[in-house]
Amino acid sequence: MLIVQKFGGSSVADAERINHVAGIIADTYCEGHSVVVVLSAQGDTTDDLIAKAREINSSPSKREMDVLLSTGEQITVALVAMALEKLGLPVISLTGWQIGMNTDSNHSDAKIKDVDTERIKRELDARRIVLVAGFQGINKYDDITTLGRGGSDTTAVAIASVLHADVCQKYTDEEGVYTADPRFVPNAKKLDEITYDEMLELASLGTQVLSNRSVELAKRYGVNLEVLSSYVRAPGTKVKEVVKKVEETKISGIAKDTNVARIAVVGLPDEPGIAFKLFRSMAHAKINVDLIIQSMSRNGTNDISFTVAENDLEAAHAAIAEQQDSIDFEHLDVDRDVAKVSIVGSGMITSSGIASLMFEALSDAKINIKMISTSEIKVSVLIDVKEADNAVSAIHARFF
Amino acid sequence: MLIVQKFGGSSVADAERINHVAGIIADTYCEGHSVVVVLSAQGDTTDDLIAKAREINSSPSKREMDVLLSTGEQITVALVAMALEKLGLPVISLTGWQIGMNTDSNHSDAKIKDVDTERIKRELDARRIVLVAGFQGINKYDDITTLGRGGSDTTAVAIASVLHADVCQKYTDEEGVYTADPRFVPNAKKLDEITYDEMLELASLGTQVLSNRSVELAKRYGVNLEVLSSYVRAPGTKVKEVVKKVEETKISGIAKDTNVARIAVVGLPDEPGIAFKLFRSMAHAKINVDLIIQSMSRNGTNDISFTVAENDLEAAHAAIAEQQDSIDFEHLDVDRDVAKVSIVGSGMITSSGIASLMFEALSDAKINIKMISTSEIKVSVLIDVKEADNAVSAIHARFF
Repeated sequence: MLIVQKFGGSSVADAERINHVAGIIADTYCEGHSVVVVLSAQGDTTDDLIAKAREINSSPSKREMDVLLSTGEQITVALVAMALEKLGLPVISLTGWQIGMNTDSNHSDAKIKDVDTERIKRELDARRIVLVAGFQGINKYDDITTLGRGGSDTTAVAIASVLHADVCQKYTDEEGVYTADPRFVPNAKKLDEITYDEMLELASLGTQVLSNRSVELAKRYGVNLEVLSSYVRAPGTKVKEVVKKVEETKISGIAKDTNVARIAVVGLPDEPGIAFKLFRSMAHAKINVDLIIQSMSRNGTNDISFTVAENDLEAAHAAIAEQQDSIDFEHLDVDRDVAKVSIVGSGMITSSGIASLMFEALSDAKINIKMISTSEIKVSVLIDVKEADNAVSAIHARFF
Repeated sequence: MLIVQKFGGSSVADAERINHVAGIIADTYCEGHSVVVVLSAQGDTTDDLIAKAREINSSPSKREMDVLLSTGEQITVALVAMALEKLGLPVISLTGWQIGMNTDSNHSDAKIKDVDTERIKRELDARRIVLVAGFQGINKYDDITTLGRGGSDTTAVAIASVLHADVCQKYTDEEGVYTADPRFVPNAKKLDEITYDEMLELASLGTQVLSNRSVELAKRYGVNLEVLSSYVRAPGTKVKEVVKKVEETKISGIAKDTNVARIAVVGLPDEPGIAFKLFRSMAHAKINVDLIIQSMSRNGTNDISFTVAENDLEAAHAAIAEQQDSIDFEHLDVDRDVAKVSIVGSGMITSSGIASLMFEALSDAKINIKMISTSEIKVSVLIDVKEADNAVSAIHARFF
């Protein structure tokens, strides 16, 4: 089999962890598989590099930031290669430019355009373990780019896709995907399988196991994903198109996201084009908007509330305030102390009782709901951030 | 003018030093010059990376070591670029592979084959300050290589050569090239000019101002070098083919090298081919041999003594011991506690009294000479390492 493995920053944080990871890679290789491994920067390396940059320039160009940050993954691949060399195994490390990871020029958040497979294939044909620096690529000018948050996951899935790998294994601190975050909900259950769509909702809803973009990419190109533990030798959770469910589980998981803030734009004129103007300003500022709720019209005005990532709040606020003349709203209302709690399950739309069961659980726990949003496979509520863990526990207890 | 500047690791050790260096670069650029700057890894970065590697594997492959170490210079160029961005200047950082620094495949000590000038020229044409990561290149397989000790100096001279730069400025902690190391000899004098050959002897003799290879390269391609201070705004020392000497200085400088050890191969058969066998084994082990002295034959046997860099001593000893059967010597004698002190001056061969003046100075200071070697422009003596500073002072006092 051709297996792509991905290890994150905490898995390679120090020499001991690197040797452990080398052991997992070595076992896979020695079982006769072809192995490509995508690695992230060690533990706090990226944060340390950012701190170094900020000490010199509080707003460096994204191009130079990418030059700086891409060294983190390059250090990791070299060190893990050395650990595998010590085990006597043939191994080679490759950077983003060496594998031809071609991206657009959107520095710090670049999108992958294509991956040359020639170099990796040549090394695999020579029976070498191939270690690839995640998170990084190059644009058409041969400048270094980085792929943004969760970029190494994206690298791994992209490589698995172009190489037609049998599986893309993401190693994490957890044993797989759980019905809720096992650090907070002790009786959370590990799922054997989950669909891309469910995983996508869970990924975008604050479960940090797999990045959203990597799951989207896996779904689009049919890459078999597996989330498993770098500590415990056990099957993890398989992410695929269709899942055989032994019993009809009502929901697959519960997710919590505290990196969220709510903006309410109060007193908008009730006329066409207002929402467009509002969210165009968000798009220009490259701010992702999540839950959107438009209230019913009252006295010729509307309110529109939406959520953004908390670290985008200031930029979002500024972008809208700038538009006050053209959008003509009354005022802006901001709430930082909110969390989004969501339930995800592909059978949700067919079981109308699911949402009400969730609301009932919150009601019984005396948790007030500030916003609600539903899709085919999820129900999200915005609540006070202090209630978030309670809410997850209460909902989990109700469903599992 | 097109000016290539080179700053070493201590010049970019922290944010404060980086801002200082950015100031020098900015001034040069704002005077209207085109500026290419070659940078080394920050202060202890390379040592830290080596320590990280050793923790994992005591003898990692040189290829992976090069992948690891080359990140040091990449970090520096990004940080210095950010400092220049803060000053509002147009700047771009480039790595070894981005400028097409093509080398052979001798990892950790690669030789430069050629440099593509296309990218650098394009950036200079756009009036950008170009920052180049020193010490690193790529081989024909697109693998990262490093140029070995003094590699960033070599990078700077190679770039100055291919771009036909007007001058290649090496910034150091000192104000130029001195008649002796000013840290140990307080009345050492700064030279305004020095020839490549004299500088070459000084470089190879332990004066750390410019690496040997970079001076050789500069001589071969006629690159005008200038050694000057990163602290004091003052003309430095110009290194060129012919020097106008106002008065006939007898010697240009005195150098000390303590990274040296002596091996004596005692009781060699007095027959042809012995020296060849001996030094072939050194060449195979890639060990540079310096002073070589063969004693007169006595009772049909010879002794050959030579010096190597102290960190090559074990490898040299092992390589010769391995050959005991074929070379048939009696025993090996090793002395680590030696230093090489040399006087350099292009007029030396014509003034026969120079060497004896040096020996007299040492004799007066009661310093015993263990080996002597002379060339057209230098006289070197091997002495006890404890006497090295005394010897330099005594010789300096005699000549200047």
